[in-house]
Amino acid sequence: MRPSGREPSQMRAVTLERNIAPKAEGSCLVAFGSTRVLVTASVETSLPSWRRGQGLGWVTAEYGMLPRATGTRTRREATAGKQSGRTQEIQRLIGRSLRAVVDMAALGENQITIDCDVLEADGGTRTASITGAYIALADAIAWMNERKLTKANPLRDTVAAVSCGIYRGMPVLDLDYLEDVEAETDANFVLTGSGKFVEIQGTAEQNPFSREELDTLMGLAEKGISELTVLQKTALGG
Amino acid sequence: MRPSGREPSQMRAVTLERNIAPKAEGSCLVAFGSTRVLVTASVETSLPSWRRGQGLGWVTAEYGMLPRATGTRTRREATAGKQSGRTQEIQRLIGRSLRAVVDMAALGENQITIDCDVLEADGGTRTASITGAYIALADAIAWMNERKLTKANPLRDTVAAVSCGIYRGMPVLDLDYLEDVEAETDANFVLTGSGKFVEIQGTAEQNPFSREELDTLMGLAEKGISELTVLQKTALGG
Amino acid sequence: MRPSGREPSQMRAVTLERNIAPKAEGSCLVAFGSTRVLVTASVETSLPSWRRGQGLGWVTAEYGMLPRATGTRTRREATAGKQSGRTQEIQRLIGRSLRAVVDMAALGENQITIDCDVLEADGGTRTASITGAYIALADAIAWMNERKLTKANPLRDTVAAVSCGIYRGMPVLDLDYLEDVEAETDANFVLTGSGKFVEIQGTAEQNPFSREELDTLMGLAEKGISELTVLQKTALGG
Amino acid sequence: MRPSGREPSQMRAVTLERNIAPKAEGSCLVAFGSTRVLVTASVETSLPSWRRGQGLGWVTAEYGMLPRATGTRTRREATAGKQSGRTQEIQRLIGRSLRAVVDMAALGENQITIDCDVLEADGGTRTASITGAYIALADAIAWMNERKLTKANPLRDTVAAVSCGIYRGMPVLDLDYLEDVEAETDANFVLTGSGKFVEIQGTAEQNPFSREELDTLMGLAEKGISELTVLQKTALGG
Amino acid sequence: MRPSGREPSQMRAVTLERNIAPKAEGSCLVAFGSTRVLVTASVETSLPSWRRGQGLGWVTAEYGMLPRATGTRTRREATAGKQSGRTQEIQRLIGRSLRAVVDMAALGENQITIDCDVLEADGGTRTASITGAYIALADAIAWMNERKLTKANPLRDTVAAVSCGIYRGMPVLDLDYLEDVEAETDANFVLTGSGKFVEIQGTAEQNPFSREELDTLMGLAEKGISELTVLQKTALGG
Amino acid sequence: MRPSGREPSQMRAVTLERNIAPKAEGSCLVAFGSTRVLVTASVETSLPSWRRGQGLGWVTAEYGMLPRATGTRTRREATAGKQSGRTQEIQRLIGRSLRAVVDMAALGENQITIDCDVLEADGGTRTASITGAYIALADAIAWMNERKLTKANPLRDTVAAVSCGIYRGMPVLDLDYLEDVEAETDANFVLTGSGKFVEIQGTAEQNPFSREELDTLMGLAEKGISELTVLQKTALGG
Repeated sequence: MRPSGREPSQMRAVTLERNIAPKAEGSCLVAFGSTRVLVTASVETSLPSWRRGQGLGWVTAEYGMLPRATGTRTRREATAGKQSGRTQEIQRLIGRSLRAVVDMAALGENQITIDCDVLEADGGTRTASITGAYIALADAIAWMNERKLTKANPLRDTVAAVSCGIYRGMPVLDLDYLEDVEAETDANFVLTGSGKFVEIQGTAEQNPFSREELDTLMGLAEKGISELTVLQKTALGG
Repeated sequence: MRPSGREPSQMRAVTLERNIAPKAEGSCLVAFGSTRVLVTASVETSLPSWRRGQGLGWVTAEYGMLPRATGTRTRREATAGKQSGRTQEIQRLIGRSLRAVVDMAALGENQITIDCDVLEADGGTRTASITGAYIALADAIAWMNERKLTKANPLRDTVAAVSCGIYRGMPVLDLDYLEDVEAETDANFVLTGSGKFVEIQGTAEQNPFSREELDTLMGLAEKGISELTVLQKTALGG
Repeated sequence: MRPSGREPSQMRAVTLERNIAPKAEGSCLVAFGSTRVLVTASVETSLPSWRRGQGLGWVTAEYGMLPRATGTRTRREATAGKQSGRTQEIQRLIGRSLRAVVDMAALGENQITIDCDVLEADGGTRTASITGAYIALADAIAWMNERKLTKANPLRDTVAAVSCGIYRGMPVLDLDYLEDVEAETDANFVLTGSGKFVEIQGTAEQNPFSREELDTLMGLAEKGISELTVLQKTALGG
Repeated sequence: MRPSGREPSQMRAVTLERNIAPKAEGSCLVAFGSTRVLVTASVETSLPSWRRGQGLGWVTAEYGMLPRATGTRTRREATAGKQSGRTQEIQRLIGRSLRAVVDMAALGENQITIDCDVLEADGGTRTASITGAYIALADAIAWMNERKLTKANPLRDTVAAVSCGIYRGMPVLDLDYLEDVEAETDANFVLTGSGKFVEIQGTAEQNPFSREELDTLMGLAEKGISELTVLQKTALGG
Repeated sequence: MRPSGREPSQMRAVTLERNIAPKAEGSCLVAFGSTRVLVTASVETSLPSWRRGQGLGWVTAEYGMLPRATGTRTRREATAGKQSGRTQEIQRLIGRSLRAVVDMAALGENQITIDCDVLEADGGTRTASITGAYIALADAIAWMNERKLTKANPLRDTVAAVSCGIYRGMPVLDLDYLEDVEAETDANFVLTGSGKFVEIQGTAEQNPFSREELDTLMGLAEKGISELTVLQKTALGG
Repeated sequence: MRPSGREPSQMRAVTLERNIAPKAEGSCLVAFGSTRVLVTASVETSLPSWRRGQGLGWVTAEYGMLPRATGTRTRREATAGKQSGRTQEIQRLIGRSLRAVVDMAALGENQITIDCDVLEADGGTRTASITGAYIALADAIAWMNERKLTKANPLRDTVAAVSCGIYRGMPVLDLDYLEDVEAETDANFVLTGSGKFVEIQGTAEQNPFSREELDTLMGLAEKGISELTVLQKTALGG
């Protein structure tokens, strides 16, 4: 039995609220149950120097957590003077996931920076971030398309993410915090709307898993992503 | 004429939404017009080492801005590796303002950390932060009182803050961003509910001001604070 | 009774020794009683990049304390790896105070950097710094005027600073360290020679103050500044 | 055709040279073709404070590259003042991989720190690091067993790692640098000697991959790991 | 001919002004010609943790330069966020030089921190620092002896320092800035009052020097140190 | 009697293995007994900005130690976030030593960066580094000469380094770790192949030394360097 009473293959309630940050070119408040992340997409018509002169754009991401997104206060990274290894790992994952569905030539020599700031953390902050970031990205690209800043539509597909894991011996979809802490195995999947894998990250610090278990988790992930893709398309009004 | 069409002594619409961060002992989403700040209060039953053994508590504050709280993206301080001088100045001000209404002996050897994170910035982020922080602080102290963590009620008064300035020769209350940029003189006032001054910070980088002008600004501030005090008491259900 | 035996409205002995740092374009060793600050003004005929191309100059300030300026040794900020929030707050205040009396168009695209290094600290280091910095600034500008580096005389007024506070219930002028530690209320005032306010920073962490008390402190400050202005003019030989 | 002329399922020549660092409790110079990593294991009979008092040990890892391990010189991280996100990601992966085969209760309240320093980088530095780190770890644990520092033998299994990817449309095992740069898809697999998965990290920044492709890569990885496991056992003289 | 008109073996005018920093247990304003350094000695009756419990004291030193000690402004190290390699090298040298004449057992478990802050730099700041630091150290130790903080007199000898170099082919004593910039060879000598060598640091980035040249420089150094030793003894009233 | 059984004037076994790092333009694995340092030389056809436009090249060095080069693990400087004062001192020494034998005009506007990474530390890491760095430098310059990147042969002489010290009252050559820890006096000598001094750094934190003792140490150093010079010439095949 899951702590939340959910079925093994049941996701938490997911909401995607667009245009939550009026100053940004794209934004989304995404919730996976109690996990809430505020995502903004910022367009710049310039590039970092290492990327210039190739006719290609760039998409990058940064991630943060408000100090009291967690049950006990977490030290503010700006005070600590650096981002933790975990933070850097997550923001690199978000950036790679989004770049997988963007045609950089069509984007032109522009950069989009995605900021994911966790308002409340209850497990799955990275998967919620990616899922919501797609919405902010799509809106920012639409904003650019309207202003003729792109060469063609740079969006090649949708992208979403979900976690799966083995909790008390049972493969489950979309782990919340209570499950995450206890799970023997934990995997994050990033898939496109067309069902292809962009990233798969499975970890079994406690109990190494078999190939069969991994197959089961992949099946759960595919189900979850297909649901998220429908929600994304609905949110974007198409 | 003010850009917003407000009267010189008219504040922006102010809202104080309590308990917005379910994990924190106290929290408030405060809005001064478009300026929105998420404030949390975190209780710890321990103290930093320099404060221990005196029978006194401590209240401290940290301040941050989401990168896209502003019209163009601001660099994330966690990435820059340090808090800016402006950030430190503001968080020190917030901490001092709140400590002025707390009886540290009654608080006991506990610490309350206030986090003010700006979701959207349209002028007056520090005054909105202080005004909202009082709500989060009051709720955190109530939480402590219920659990017998305090010796007596540590709250001695309410506290709120507002800015005033001289905009195109006209003294005005509660400057928004458009006014702030252009103002010749800019002052922040922190007052208690009983009308006493906790902090006054006036700056005239452009045009030094006369004592008469300062008097006018103080009058506006007293009006604004009395309105904020009513809103705070209403929010706290008293 | 004040620890020093001074009258409530009596300043400490103030001295302004010009040209104390032979390599600098302007310099001053300023003493407010035992508080001694070495101030230098450095002229550069270039600007930081964000300020270029507007036909305007810039004045900025940095502040530091020798480790043994204080009764017990203070950790060197270069060793700690960063300037404290207090240091940044003070150097930002000094910079704003000086800019208020400089015509940036007349200064041309040049920068003056003021360095205030406290040799001995006995209260009022920021007000002594500002008062002495005016002398170093004036000498540096005279040096520039002689070399035709300015377009017109950029100095619009003099500027000086003093602290006031309520010590054991009595409003007093120019707090020394013993008074500062104990004062219920503490305010710093920066005024021009013509009696206008550039900055006012009042803090009442202990006991919030009334508007009447603030009025009294302002009166003391005006008296102190008028005395400092005379000393500044005398020092500059006018 | 692979640049090296290898068959798709052919690994590079792998060597594991034990006891290369005479001062360390365990050490190994591991080569995957031209990729060479010097691994040491350091035993401490104390723990970081957050881990104490639970009767459990800890295994952690750090990773670095000599500046000229690469074709053009890479900036030294000690000079840059911090470890890159990539470095942190890799060292966290190495630590998790090793912890998966260690019984922390049997290890007792001791810590083993693994240092992986890349002498020459030609693709697969993280998989070579993990594979070599197992040797250093095993020797360090044997050293501890001899000295009765452990409660029982803490080693539960062997662990090794290998990368697979899709290079010019062809699934290949153990990518070298030339393949890595061009690969559409890139995955790292960490498996135990008994064939269970500890970590799987697949990335497709260029072309998302299908579940079938992932299955093929997993098959290659299982083949590679079984070969590495034989080499590890041989090296350890068993 | 030397730029200053001095004879090859002639030192600059040296002055040692004691008790210049009233808050410090020992202090000295030392001048070697235009080079002026303010030195303080701070006594603490505790030790850094690595030194405790051995019955031995410690003497350490820190060095800094005011930004406008130099002809053009040097960036403040507190702003840069770290001490330069040159600064660290110098302060390590000062610390070693002083420790050579202190009996650490007699000092007891106390620490003396020497701060050398250069007010004006005209060559030889490290040798002036060491020479002046001896005075501050001696006064701090006398202060400790009076208060029975030491076990016996910890001062075993005096210590002073001077630079020598080959300037335009001519061996000269006590290089000033103009000579230092141009010198082919540059050596710093730290000797005790009894004529023993504590440190010798010779550098010939331009033209390697012969053993004969080094001998000549050593002779000059011995002459200079003997003069400095007389001045030190006079300053200390002996 | 020396711990190693060596004669007072006997060096440890020294080996110089060229071309150990295949990606670098020059490299050398140098051993002084158990002390082993991996040195690489990296050629860049550009210069840091401060050196450009003068028609002169530049040679610089960086130094590091693998964490387990030492008997107990040393903290990784990349993790600590900065290079220690000791590290900076050593790398500055290496750079100066090599520059003394390079004709910067002949080198042209190119930079050579020497990296010295200590694999095992048993005393004398800085002298081994310099001695091995000369080999890497010579090979890198030969590589440049072949490609016509230089204007003439920039190598003016060879350079090598050795330490001497007074161990239990006996002057000895090439101190190993056991001797270094205990030595009263410790000096490093950098000499050219033609017998001139480039650097001399003598330190006597324990017992100041006499001029006679220094003379003896210099004699030992000259002997050691002449042996190292022969080995260098042999290694370079000529």
